[in-house]
Amino acid sequence: MSGIWGKNLQVSIFGESHGVAIGITIDGIPPGLEIDMDRVLFEMARRAPGQNELTTSRKEKDLPELLSGFLDGKTTGAPLTAIIRNSNTRSTDYSLLKNVMRPGHADFSSRVRYKGHNDHRGSGHFSGRITAPLVFAGAICKQWLEQKGVTIGAHIQSIGSVEDEKFVDQRQVSLEQVENLKHQQLPLFKENKTEEMRKVILEAKDDGDSVGGVVETFVLGVPAGYGNPFFDSVESTLAHLVFSVPAIKGIEFGTGFDITKMRGSEANDEYYYDEDGQVKTRSNNNGGIVGGITHGMPIVFRAAVKPPASITKKQQTINVDEGKAAELSVEGRHDPCIVPRVLPVLEAVTALALMDLMIGVAADE
Amino acid sequence: MSGIWGKNLQVSIFGESHGVAIGITIDGIPPGLEIDMDRVLFEMARRAPGQNELTTSRKEKDLPELLSGFLDGKTTGAPLTAIIRNSNTRSTDYSLLKNVMRPGHADFSSRVRYKGHNDHRGSGHFSGRITAPLVFAGAICKQWLEQKGVTIGAHIQSIGSVEDEKFVDQRQVSLEQVENLKHQQLPLFKENKTEEMRKVILEAKDDGDSVGGVVETFVLGVPAGYGNPFFDSVESTLAHLVFSVPAIKGIEFGTGFDITKMRGSEANDEYYYDEDGQVKTRSNNNGGIVGGITHGMPIVFRAAVKPPASITKKQQTINVDEGKAAELSVEGRHDPCIVPRVLPVLEAVTALALMDLMIGVAADE
Amino acid sequence: MSGIWGKNLQVSIFGESHGVAIGITIDGIPPGLEIDMDRVLFEMARRAPGQNELTTSRKEKDLPELLSGFLDGKTTGAPLTAIIRNSNTRSTDYSLLKNVMRPGHADFSSRVRYKGHNDHRGSGHFSGRITAPLVFAGAICKQWLEQKGVTIGAHIQSIGSVEDEKFVDQRQVSLEQVENLKHQQLPLFKENKTEEMRKVILEAKDDGDSVGGVVETFVLGVPAGYGNPFFDSVESTLAHLVFSVPAIKGIEFGTGFDITKMRGSEANDEYYYDEDGQVKTRSNNNGGIVGGITHGMPIVFRAAVKPPASITKKQQTINVDEGKAAELSVEGRHDPCIVPRVLPVLEAVTALALMDLMIGVAADE
Amino acid sequence: MSGIWGKNLQVSIFGESHGVAIGITIDGIPPGLEIDMDRVLFEMARRAPGQNELTTSRKEKDLPELLSGFLDGKTTGAPLTAIIRNSNTRSTDYSLLKNVMRPGHADFSSRVRYKGHNDHRGSGHFSGRITAPLVFAGAICKQWLEQKGVTIGAHIQSIGSVEDEKFVDQRQVSLEQVENLKHQQLPLFKENKTEEMRKVILEAKDDGDSVGGVVETFVLGVPAGYGNPFFDSVESTLAHLVFSVPAIKGIEFGTGFDITKMRGSEANDEYYYDEDGQVKTRSNNNGGIVGGITHGMPIVFRAAVKPPASITKKQQTINVDEGKAAELSVEGRHDPCIVPRVLPVLEAVTALALMDLMIGVAADE
Repeated sequence: MSGIWGKNLQVSIFGESHGVAIGITIDGIPPGLEIDMDRVLFEMARRAPGQNELTTSRKEKDLPELLSGFLDGKTTGAPLTAIIRNSNTRSTDYSLLKNVMRPGHADFSSRVRYKGHNDHRGSGHFSGRITAPLVFAGAICKQWLEQKGVTIGAHIQSIGSVEDEKFVDQRQVSLEQVENLKHQQLPLFKENKTEEMRKVILEAKDDGDSVGGVVETFVLGVPAGYGNPFFDSVESTLAHLVFSVPAIKGIEFGTGFDITKMRGSEANDEYYYDEDGQVKTRSNNNGGIVGGITHGMPIVFRAAVKPPASITKKQQTINVDEGKAAELSVEGRHDPCIVPRVLPVLEAVTALALMDLMIGVAADE
Repeated sequence: MSGIWGKNLQVSIFGESHGVAIGITIDGIPPGLEIDMDRVLFEMARRAPGQNELTTSRKEKDLPELLSGFLDGKTTGAPLTAIIRNSNTRSTDYSLLKNVMRPGHADFSSRVRYKGHNDHRGSGHFSGRITAPLVFAGAICKQWLEQKGVTIGAHIQSIGSVEDEKFVDQRQVSLEQVENLKHQQLPLFKENKTEEMRKVILEAKDDGDSVGGVVETFVLGVPAGYGNPFFDSVESTLAHLVFSVPAIKGIEFGTGFDITKMRGSEANDEYYYDEDGQVKTRSNNNGGIVGGITHGMPIVFRAAVKPPASITKKQQTINVDEGKAAELSVEGRHDPCIVPRVLPVLEAVTALALMDLMIGVAADE
Repeated sequence: MSGIWGKNLQVSIFGESHGVAIGITIDGIPPGLEIDMDRVLFEMARRAPGQNELTTSRKEKDLPELLSGFLDGKTTGAPLTAIIRNSNTRSTDYSLLKNVMRPGHADFSSRVRYKGHNDHRGSGHFSGRITAPLVFAGAICKQWLEQKGVTIGAHIQSIGSVEDEKFVDQRQVSLEQVENLKHQQLPLFKENKTEEMRKVILEAKDDGDSVGGVVETFVLGVPAGYGNPFFDSVESTLAHLVFSVPAIKGIEFGTGFDITKMRGSEANDEYYYDEDGQVKTRSNNNGGIVGGITHGMPIVFRAAVKPPASITKKQQTINVDEGKAAELSVEGRHDPCIVPRVLPVLEAVTALALMDLMIGVAADE
Repeated sequence: MSGIWGKNLQVSIFGESHGVAIGITIDGIPPGLEIDMDRVLFEMARRAPGQNELTTSRKEKDLPELLSGFLDGKTTGAPLTAIIRNSNTRSTDYSLLKNVMRPGHADFSSRVRYKGHNDHRGSGHFSGRITAPLVFAGAICKQWLEQKGVTIGAHIQSIGSVEDEKFVDQRQVSLEQVENLKHQQLPLFKENKTEEMRKVILEAKDDGDSVGGVVETFVLGVPAGYGNPFFDSVESTLAHLVFSVPAIKGIEFGTGFDITKMRGSEANDEYYYDEDGQVKTRSNNNGGIVGGITHGMPIVFRAAVKPPASITKKQQTINVDEGKAAELSVEGRHDPCIVPRVLPVLEAVTALALMDLMIGVAADE
């Protein structure tokens, strides 16, 4: 296991879905940071299950209890730890799954990795539930970033084959719009796509199946000059954390894979001075990052979220106890589509990555 | 800067394109590993410029000089350092570029990051040349991996819009074919695509322009059970290193972004026991990794390589010294397409990542 | 703050004396390790306050609550987190101390470091209480080490000027004696020194003052070949952790500072083969470590523990709020001598350091 | 091996005594730092062998070649690497030592650790020669520190039983005196002790033996508020690096082991405001550090340097090839006393540790 991440800002995550509690320690937050806990809870509620018919009917309050590092509404500079007790756990749902390996899930690979000692109940440490502490930590980082003028937003780029329009430019979205996205059930630039997407999700749900999608995350207000090549480019740092989030199978920055079909003359983002003398680029094919370092334009990336592996539809698999083939229908309360709940998680890890990078550069002064 | 990477196997990279030398230190190689230096040099030659009309006409011998950690054909267990002297440098080519920012290149972002003190000649530390030591290190890791039965291969998935077929399965390629790929000018499964791709590259070259493409890398023979979630999943570890490679703008594992258009019942890779009692999956949409841990199928990922930024075609940009708009045509000997030379680099970082992960799991025993 | 330590085994510590809880996350424990919780609690009881007249009369149960990483009596391989709630806290005792800086304590330096935002109540994160989670973690590592035949012991080398005899050799102590030391109020090789030491402590207590001492820690059964020079020698790894323990001001290995008065011919530990063909040394001036690597003899080191800074005796200091001189008598329930309670802490950090090193070498195989 | 150290400033060291070259990469130096190379060479000359009759007669020029990270007299912000070629090597001197284990040296422990593959010639990676790159790196850090008003000095506290007076206070030494110490053959506060110390060394030399001593290092001008508890206290950070230096067996801060014989009322350093309103302490028993954080007084520590292990005097040992007892007289040009040459090394690692800590705190702002 490697539950610790970070250089200048470090987090240490822990917990299993059906254990006593999950939680996170954040080490390296500057002392004296005022934290608005209501906004932290709002971010956590965005990720929580049981919100509507599009997600699992499991209900978890996900109320974090702060154990340390926080006094009189401010960080103390000591490690800040929060835990979330596990309550609404029905372990019996999972007893069957100890030996029958769910296709697409960590059951088999983690069993080999941990020699059968891992807590398999509710996927244990591999449950999506472990992202709740990440959202908690990210919500704190967001408040630090906002003081520096940095805002993080995200929208659903696609569910199955239904697409929203892509983020292009800072000029395209106001901070108010970014905030509004967070209040939508399905955060979209083109809200008229909502019904079509709902339909795709609910049809899969009715079929005992699931669907995936793409999330686009963008960051406004990051100044030029952040990133630590050779090995800790902005892309490396973000991708490292994004691929920690369960179910992510791809990431692309700026124009991403499509840039490979452009010629250099088209792909290169030409510089100009805007009316305020600020350096800007006319296009943003590089997603705000060149040479692994920000150049002042918005950071943009898209992440591919696979369809949830736990489905009631019957699948072929193996029973490792009996050493033979088995058939499986995963009962229980599962998400037909995890995409809307992944948004706040991706925003959170983006906040962690950026705060780590921005503290890091300060260190060089 | 953060020129150090790794947990169990660490590398420390250094050097600038027009400085005295570039190099790398590898820390943590087990003592007593025999190294076939000819095969190391073969890998480095694959990356070297000046090979044919498809790449830059700059010629660099890229001969590594081993300074430490190597005695009588074997590693000693002490840090292994190799350097490559810079020789064929024409610094005058680059004097103009100190103040005129090349679109798509690190000129502007690195200038802000390093307050104008970075070595701008030939892109300095941001030159693709810095990948030569990576290939050196990766070639050593490959020899360690081969002893464990692990083989890494790569082919060009696409140049511009011309596509090769995708890697599907271990059954599709023999080790001989994997080796053959390394000897092709344009490594492809479908060699009949060669001419079409050559044409795309040479047309861009004639236009003073450049083209990008996609590289697909695959790993055969990795046993189930490697990877260190939560934060050091196989995907996180690979993506971190892959995004260190200049010009990479996207990565996807297995079916990648297309998995978002599948339903769970289709995306989930069903398990079965093969005739030898080995656990296999019928499809490999997850690219050999679930829950961040290998499950015994080949690892597969594709990386998006953008078209080289340095083109002779005229572009609009800025002169930061004069603080006003400028026009730029980048003279010199540049690659019209970097994709073929990126292959050995991606194989190399894959080797580094896997060796780090495999040593890491051994540590838990 | 840097509350995270370790390479192969990592710990993340958190908590403040008068906050909600203190705790620790251990990352990297091999899965399937059986843990005898009674023995963990025994170690924690050794460190707990309120045991007898020689220590503070504060009583803390220090009962750890395991939140994760532990199932059916075994580790799961996921991060193992335990917390200890703070209960017997009298914050009012400390209100005065916010502005009046205790000489010898972290009040002033931490106030500057954390810009006045640190939790000053009961010394906050700088309280000796934070060592309770360390003892918890060390007790687990000890059980892993015992499976490898490694035993850690400690005794009081001196209190004030009263000295016990020094550890010389594995032949000197049986495992039973090592265990017995843990049950003594003042663990000594020469138990007849007990009364004299008690007297030194109680006299200081009666005077509203405090005394220090030296703890000698030894490790039996470590095979030759552990340690990771250049930078992670056994001495570096141990010293790093030992100096994390509050009140430690010096450490010496083997003969330590006295070796500087020997000639090489005397200091060098001569090798010989014992009757079983094992390599041994006739003396152990190097404390079991040469070149930063164990050579098969017991590891021995002594750590200097300063007298507790909090005393009722009147001292001159400053009031930083008023910006002027102040007089201070620290009221409350303080230890007149911390040495006996430091023993299990030093054993614990020794266990952490050795387990990290031993896992690390396994990684090289 | 673990040849990499640091958090905010990282170094990666490499090389073996009789290999091609030794060297170091420094990662994280702020860009634009002007370096006076003459002063770097002066520091390296202080450590170099062959200076006078008190040290080995081997002569090494130890001229560093800068490979990267340095342009026009300034750091570029990219990793700075320097190498020193090995020239004056007489490998034949060492052929015997492959199987006959020198008592007190790393021969046996490193042979076990690296399974016999380590380069044993001239002690290989375990040679004191590897400290030359450390002095190079430290000399650069010193120039950064001086810009912040921080000065590092050292003197010989003792050789055998002959003692210099101890450092007490900033008021005791002027910056000129600190500089003068660097020019003495035996740097002492009380220069009248020089002859006595010379005699102790030369007598040992005549006997084919060696002597040890204690080095006292002090740091002037470090402001209050540096250090990263819980795990990266100033003491932990310094001790970690100091114990990387070959031959060091003990370290103590401030009054060190003697503080254990004081009562708290005596040991506590009482605060006062000086005439400029600066916070000072009347004594400095804590060596400038409380709670692991600087409090504005000079940092002081003493390190125990053991007598060199290589002596011509006959010793009993083992021949591991033959598996039996052997007698050994180490021929060659060895130092009878390493203490004077260790001074610049300890100053160098102190500079590295402090720069890492000071950059780290800047990161929190």
